[in-house]
Amino acid sequence: MLQGAGLSALHLAKGYSRSPPPFSRLIPGLMAAEFAVTTLGTSKCMDGCEWTAVIGRSRQEGRRDEAREGRVKNRQIVLVARPKAKLGPEHFRMSEGAVLEPKEGEVLLRVHLISLDAANRAWMHGATYRSAIEAGSVMAGGAIAEVVTSRAPDFGPGDLVFADTGWQDYAALATKALIKVPRIEPMTHLLSVYGIAGLTAYFGLLRIGRPQPGETVVVSAAAGSVGSLVGQIAKIKGCRAVGIAGGTAKCDWLAKELGFDAAVDYKAGSIYGALKAAAPSGIDVYFDNVGGDILEACLPLMHVGGRIVCCGAVSAYDGAAPATGPRGVPGLIVVKRLLMQGFIVTDYFNERQVAIAELQHWVQTGQLKIEEDVIQGLENTPKALIGLLAGENRGKRIVRVSE
Amino acid sequence: MLQGAGLSALHLAKGYSRSPPPFSRLIPGLMAAEFAVTTLGTSKCMDGCEWTAVIGRSRQEGRRDEAREGRVKNRQIVLVARPKAKLGPEHFRMSEGAVLEPKEGEVLLRVHLISLDAANRAWMHGATYRSAIEAGSVMAGGAIAEVVTSRAPDFGPGDLVFADTGWQDYAALATKALIKVPRIEPMTHLLSVYGIAGLTAYFGLLRIGRPQPGETVVVSAAAGSVGSLVGQIAKIKGCRAVGIAGGTAKCDWLAKELGFDAAVDYKAGSIYGALKAAAPSGIDVYFDNVGGDILEACLPLMHVGGRIVCCGAVSAYDGAAPATGPRGVPGLIVVKRLLMQGFIVTDYFNERQVAIAELQHWVQTGQLKIEEDVIQGLENTPKALIGLLAGENRGKRIVRVSE
Repeated sequence: MLQGAGLSALHLAKGYSRSPPPFSRLIPGLMAAEFAVTTLGTSKCMDGCEWTAVIGRSRQEGRRDEAREGRVKNRQIVLVARPKAKLGPEHFRMSEGAVLEPKEGEVLLRVHLISLDAANRAWMHGATYRSAIEAGSVMAGGAIAEVVTSRAPDFGPGDLVFADTGWQDYAALATKALIKVPRIEPMTHLLSVYGIAGLTAYFGLLRIGRPQPGETVVVSAAAGSVGSLVGQIAKIKGCRAVGIAGGTAKCDWLAKELGFDAAVDYKAGSIYGALKAAAPSGIDVYFDNVGGDILEACLPLMHVGGRIVCCGAVSAYDGAAPATGPRGVPGLIVVKRLLMQGFIVTDYFNERQVAIAELQHWVQTGQLKIEEDVIQGLENTPKALIGLLAGENRGKRIVRVSE
Repeated sequence: MLQGAGLSALHLAKGYSRSPPPFSRLIPGLMAAEFAVTTLGTSKCMDGCEWTAVIGRSRQEGRRDEAREGRVKNRQIVLVARPKAKLGPEHFRMSEGAVLEPKEGEVLLRVHLISLDAANRAWMHGATYRSAIEAGSVMAGGAIAEVVTSRAPDFGPGDLVFADTGWQDYAALATKALIKVPRIEPMTHLLSVYGIAGLTAYFGLLRIGRPQPGETVVVSAAAGSVGSLVGQIAKIKGCRAVGIAGGTAKCDWLAKELGFDAAVDYKAGSIYGALKAAAPSGIDVYFDNVGGDILEACLPLMHVGGRIVCCGAVSAYDGAAPATGPRGVPGLIVVKRLLMQGFIVTDYFNERQVAIAELQHWVQTGQLKIEEDVIQGLENTPKALIGLLAGENRGKRIVRVSE
């Protein structure tokens, strides 16, 4: 077992019980979260306590062994039923099972950080670009996870990946479903600026929106993970950035902290009127995360030749399918020669590295501010998604699963 | 006067009155519509009738002089009021005035053929890609017209142009608003396959729709001027062509005469069900001329990565603005990564010659059948547009103005 685990530290430590003492007490200054100990042997001392020979290993390595040996349980959040209207806690339950053994060609993954996105809710409506999440199955969701054991070439223990692990502690997945990611600090950035959110903002705005210097870019759900980046990238590209968000606090944050030129509070009255004031020369690019009334309000303000980036339709996700679509489709699309285009960020994944390098440059030069909203504990994932759909987050919402 | 007019034919003809006899009686086999005569002199005959020396000139040349000399009136069809709901004959009146003298940089045009398009009705709603047609002004409309007199370089009498002359006999226009067109036989083809209709079908389908061999192309208003060409071009490009039209007769015509693979009668019941049957493997390209319910029915049948060419929204033109848009926008655009794009054919006018050459090739090789619906007389233009909006035409509807 020791050989398989990889030796991280070997110490003699003073302990007070038969079970291994917490490693942080043994090696002061080391985080309990990071290391686990295994007792190698004990010997009685003069004062009645025991000296314990322990091997201190990264807690992940410890779990790797425990998982292998069936000693840890895999907590899973299961979708009880596909909601017919608003999503609530009653649609989820926590279940517990053994950690699966990876099959040939698979790896066993330990989930670290779960990405929460409005798309999680959209998947409950039925098959989309992925199959629908069925009642009784583990709730789907992308995550940053670490390889515990590998039965596949090119992946070894300790490798970090992005994968749709679902909402659980461990997942056994085929490697074709995995994307290797580097270890960076903070790791959460792998889900925000260097993850789906950042790449969605980057490719959606630059490839579909194609903003030109001096143009006006409007983005809805502007305080969210994608929207907050879209507005900032628009500024970097020399555009006027207008954000639409719910509430004064978010709008103030967009304008004062993130440098948006204007922010429209959609809860404060006529969106159309406020937008017209905020984009006095019209809208060249509308990055649409919400659909519905806000899309309808933007359409008549679009310039001839304007581009609408269809990124999401959050207004329609958390409830029954909407009975109607936005007025002005297709009439205004024709007369204004608009382009409306939907996309999925994975369509651009072969160009990821270029995008990440540019995003990294903007982060390092302080041009891009990253906002993250990290919630602790797998058990809080349902509540965190429900809150996200209600717009309670600012920036990228992430659930930290591993300790 | 003779010098200015250009001599076309000089004959001695036998006549029965002092006024010049109809030229067709003078020169049997020549169309009265094409020539006009001017009496040069007469001499009494034995049988009491007169021999008349006439100059037979193209009727256009005659009018050119008459117009110059203020002897002809300019009939104009004026929009009395912008309709609030359905367009009717009461929205138009015929007016008559003097033919305008062209100013410096302008030409005087004699209108030959007026193009009727659903867009004529759309322009009454307000400013679009052109300014709105205001009550009390001459109804706008594109036409093939001939230069009568020119006060501009590069244009001379007899030149044929396409221009927005409006619904009238004569128009004085600046030359920047004119597009020179060649004299071809039949001249009507300048408004159908080699005009806006053909170029709209060509550029809309090929540049926005980008159909690939084996894909399914669906087109609405398929029996109309644009739709009938779209389906045929789709076939030429190796696609399955499905037309949507109103009534069995049109659907039969599409399938039997024009070679569409299937035709859906939108008046016969559920469009969605019939479309699903006609496009069993889904829709790759939807060329939308109508918007509304038909667009809504197509959206769920679109393939991932499908293209919707937004060419028109006829369902919304002849009435008040629709209260809602199609369901599925933007939700289905996002999950299916659809592209919806509006366009105006003039955006592609710098590439016209290539398109016309290819269209000509298809016409000459019998791959493209041209259907035209020519109505005689300026006075019938309002009725012809009202009928077009009700779907009574098959192929390109044109009003022949000059005799």
